[in-house]
Amino acid sequence: MTSSTTRRALLGATAASAVLAAAGAAGAGTAAAGTARAGQPAGPDIGVLLYDGFSLLDPTGPAEVLSRLPGARVTMIAERRGPVRTDTGDVALLAERSIHEVDRLDVLLVPGAGNRGTVAAMGNRALLGWIRRIHRHSRWTTSVCTGSLVLAAAGLLDGREATTYWASADYLQSEFDVTYRPERYVRSGRIVTAAGVSAGIDMALYLASLIAGDTVAKGVQLAVEYDPRPPFDAGDAADADAALKELALRLLAESQV
Amino acid sequence: MTSSTTRRALLGATAASAVLAAAGAAGAGTAAAGTARAGQPAGPDIGVLLYDGFSLLDPTGPAEVLSRLPGARVTMIAERRGPVRTDTGDVALLAERSIHEVDRLDVLLVPGAGNRGTVAAMGNRALLGWIRRIHRHSRWTTSVCTGSLVLAAAGLLDGREATTYWASADYLQSEFDVTYRPERYVRSGRIVTAAGVSAGIDMALYLASLIAGDTVAKGVQLAVEYDPRPPFDAGDAADADAALKELALRLLAESQV
Repeated sequence: MTSSTTRRALLGATAASAVLAAAGAAGAGTAAAGTARAGQPAGPDIGVLLYDGFSLLDPTGPAEVLSRLPGARVTMIAERRGPVRTDTGDVALLAERSIHEVDRLDVLLVPGAGNRGTVAAMGNRALLGWIRRIHRHSRWTTSVCTGSLVLAAAGLLDGREATTYWASADYLQSEFDVTYRPERYVRSGRIVTAAGVSAGIDMALYLASLIAGDTVAKGVQLAVEYDPRPPFDAGDAADADAALKELALRLLAESQV
Repeated sequence: MTSSTTRRALLGATAASAVLAAAGAAGAGTAAAGTARAGQPAGPDIGVLLYDGFSLLDPTGPAEVLSRLPGARVTMIAERRGPVRTDTGDVALLAERSIHEVDRLDVLLVPGAGNRGTVAAMGNRALLGWIRRIHRHSRWTTSVCTGSLVLAAAGLLDGREATTYWASADYLQSEFDVTYRPERYVRSGRIVTAAGVSAGIDMALYLASLIAGDTVAKGVQLAVEYDPRPPFDAGDAADADAALKELALRLLAESQV
């Protein structure tokens, strides 16, 4: 078999689609961090803020989804360029740009972290200042999990409705002028917050529809075969008993460094 | 507020749970790639094979889930240590070990990739040989998306039932002695294959239950708040019309380098 035959057969043939060009044009924004791919209309410039101790799925789920938007560029950004480690210490994503190199984004995404990482980010004035500056011009400022606590610490959620990780809801409401809503994602103006970890994928599909329309968002959903069928129905804290909640928090705490 | 107060309040208090210790003991295996965390029973040693052009969510969804198992270590492994780029070229995960440094794993996970990355991995004799060697002693050998094509190219799926990315099903069946099943994940002996991209999360929860029992798996599901509620119901290829399939494949092809 030839390489070109293999490539065609492996994922099936594709043909041009007008909806893509239209979505790409609609997605054109104030690109800054990345570079448009040759032959593609400029799409949304998406920046993901990494910081020590982030939870791996928080940035990577949405990045997978949003990277499929026509012309999209996804840039991993941190206080300094280089590897940034997750809450378990086992895995590192590479930050391609420092916050000092990025001053405009169409979409900012702030992931969540374990206790240590979240507390550190909430107290990091350089990060919080950068988030505020980016938010001034962003089309969408978003968070996943305890990332909403970081947005709140930056002062962006004052007087707003938002969601967060289920176990952080009381903290969010008690420490900040925020009304918690137990939804997978909550939109308030240009800000969209997601619930814990995996909720970032749901939020990203919602964002995809806001940026490029429902048809493209559905195309992305099929592209990542997101037809979730977990073997258990245990992911909603509202249905969980105290023992399961305690177990979940223990598993998190013991897996983190 | 003090740091310790903040840390407690932020994610709620936790207490010891007997089920964790039991699960940790049950998960003890033939650790090789990682190092057990101080004070923890040895848990499963999970290795994720990265290769150029992998799809970001394929390894990171399962890694997020499996890293929460008691005592688990997750190691990103590639032909050479260092950054490994995704199919979009935008994002890089760090490989912490080369395949020459790892000869035993409890769990091997092979992610999928775009056309270019999958074809290259299927033709990489060093990778295929390493996969075969690891599989000889692994408890579970697993794949996500087109990762099952890589397992098939390594000769591990001969005569078996398996799943893969929806658009690669015909190719899997025509090129290899494999019976495709359109499920989120398929177990055949010690091998578990998952459907496309996001299906790796469902498979990882199933694996979690096999490794540490249903209770711990449910705890992990709550820990990552996996109560999926996508805004659309477009992720099942069996329900998609030809136009949506074409759009999905175009979005993939145009986002890849």
